[in-house]
Amino acid sequence: MADSIAKWAMQVRAGDTRAISRAITAIENSDPRAEDLLRELFPFTGRAYLIGITGAPGTGKSTLVDKLAAHYRAQGKTVGIIAVDPSSPYTGGAVLGDRIRMQGHATDSGIFIRSMATRGFFGGLARATADAALVLDSAGKQIVLIETVGVGQDEIDVVRLAECTLVLVVPGLGDDVQNMKAGLMEVADIFVLNKAEREGADRLEQQLHAMLELAPSHNDGRGWKPPVIRTTATEGKGIGELAEAIEKCRQQREHSGEQRARILEYWKQRLLLLLETQLLARALGDDGQRALESLASEVAERKKNPYTAVRELLARVGL
Amino acid sequence: MADSIAKWAMQVRAGDTRAISRAITAIENSDPRAEDLLRELFPFTGRAYLIGITGAPGTGKSTLVDKLAAHYRAQGKTVGIIAVDPSSPYTGGAVLGDRIRMQGHATDSGIFIRSMATRGFFGGLARATADAALVLDSAGKQIVLIETVGVGQDEIDVVRLAECTLVLVVPGLGDDVQNMKAGLMEVADIFVLNKAEREGADRLEQQLHAMLELAPSHNDGRGWKPPVIRTTATEGKGIGELAEAIEKCRQQREHSGEQRARILEYWKQRLLLLLETQLLARALGDDGQRALESLASEVAERKKNPYTAVRELLARVGL
Repeated sequence: MADSIAKWAMQVRAGDTRAISRAITAIENSDPRAEDLLRELFPFTGRAYLIGITGAPGTGKSTLVDKLAAHYRAQGKTVGIIAVDPSSPYTGGAVLGDRIRMQGHATDSGIFIRSMATRGFFGGLARATADAALVLDSAGKQIVLIETVGVGQDEIDVVRLAECTLVLVVPGLGDDVQNMKAGLMEVADIFVLNKAEREGADRLEQQLHAMLELAPSHNDGRGWKPPVIRTTATEGKGIGELAEAIEKCRQQREHSGEQRARILEYWKQRLLLLLETQLLARALGDDGQRALESLASEVAERKKNPYTAVRELLARVGL
Repeated sequence: MADSIAKWAMQVRAGDTRAISRAITAIENSDPRAEDLLRELFPFTGRAYLIGITGAPGTGKSTLVDKLAAHYRAQGKTVGIIAVDPSSPYTGGAVLGDRIRMQGHATDSGIFIRSMATRGFFGGLARATADAALVLDSAGKQIVLIETVGVGQDEIDVVRLAECTLVLVVPGLGDDVQNMKAGLMEVADIFVLNKAEREGADRLEQQLHAMLELAPSHNDGRGWKPPVIRTTATEGKGIGELAEAIEKCRQQREHSGEQRARILEYWKQRLLLLLETQLLARALGDDGQRALESLASEVAERKKNPYTAVRELLARVGL
């Protein structure tokens, strides 16, 4: 068992596509071997640069991700792509989407593309995506692109783990700046005004700048002010400028020390989440689920106070 | 201390408006006395019927709640109202809103209206609202109306604790059934087609019925199929029919045993959440925050594996 995990980890680190795929599947399935594998891989992580890409449906995320990946590949960098779209009604089509998108890069071993299955992940989606990113990181991918639709809190949590987050907007989609989710605005390091040839692009750019002036979160004195980059992803226009902006963001964050502060905060949150999961697993233990149900029944009938019930559960593990 | 809590609980149970207000403020502030108070009040809860009201901004939730409250008052029932709107930019105006709305019921001691302050509640909003509902329940309110805007997961969690949830829709608001959040659809026990005199009401009702035919969650064989009730809340039209539908929902759930199943599931979830909070507080303890930060720093520098770090935190409490 320990041997096979070690071998698997070696294969992942060598960039073996099937080993990487199996690793991400294990993460998706909460397979206990996933933790053993991640433990092996962890010392070899921390080298990839994580870029989050989010925006409403129809903003052209997938096309932009493809073009950005091609740009990095042309520079000789290895690329991993994780596509997450929990709200999409087309989840079942993720595999097909992969196949279609893979074709352009099919013969290129320097790129790895994977859709995350999202069913049953409620709340754990960000964790699963973070672990998948660690796998790609240990596999030597220098750039990891994480693509998600920017709708709910889950999705925002997913891009929060990125070192640089792109928020896509397009003219005339009815997603006026006023209607944009506040949480989405706050995670934006760069605004990508895609389909920039469309009518209304100037007005949308003005709105974005006006909003950036007002938003306190973007005037916090730490120096990085999100730029607005115009692209027409379908024609590859603006991709070079976008990559430059991403690089500037990276350098500025590193020099200001903000990068380190963000990474520390990130690991604090992840440790907290891991701790929580472990604590619950231990407190509830083997017959814990049954104990919980019988306590819930007593509480529902007002035979027991919920606070007393929780003390009883704590006492089970000597706390 | 114990004396003053006991006295406070007596005042709440007697329906004293200031005592109830202080209790909800204590819950909002995570004041430790809130738990002591809730422990005293808990045995006297479980009698109120909780109705959740949700819908996009502009659907007329507040007016509907006011009219529904007046309807129940006219039947001689006591009513508590909790208004929660975490996404509203007018949170600061909640007090003003209260004052304006209170005027209609100001001389009526059988009604209690309260807005929940929502700042800093991330994730705990549903818990705080649930505790506030327990307070109103123990204060003898027979009907508790919980009003929230139906936007994010937090808000959906808030109405999930209700025994009957109304989802408001209005014609021509651009919130077509297709665009409606799936989570919101699933919690609906009754659809309220408000502003029913507007153009497009027939089409919207047809869409709702068509969607209900397709939605598997609403065809689960447990018998309750969400009806669509037309109202014009500003004129009080349809309020009687709505109250009848709510009563039918309550009776059907009680007879089918679903009500009991829902309450059990609800207390399981609440116990789990309480347990989680207590476990973390104990595991992190006095200097736990510092331990967490130092471990996060080691993990960020890849000097330590996150899984090893969590084991060290568990060992601190002998787990």
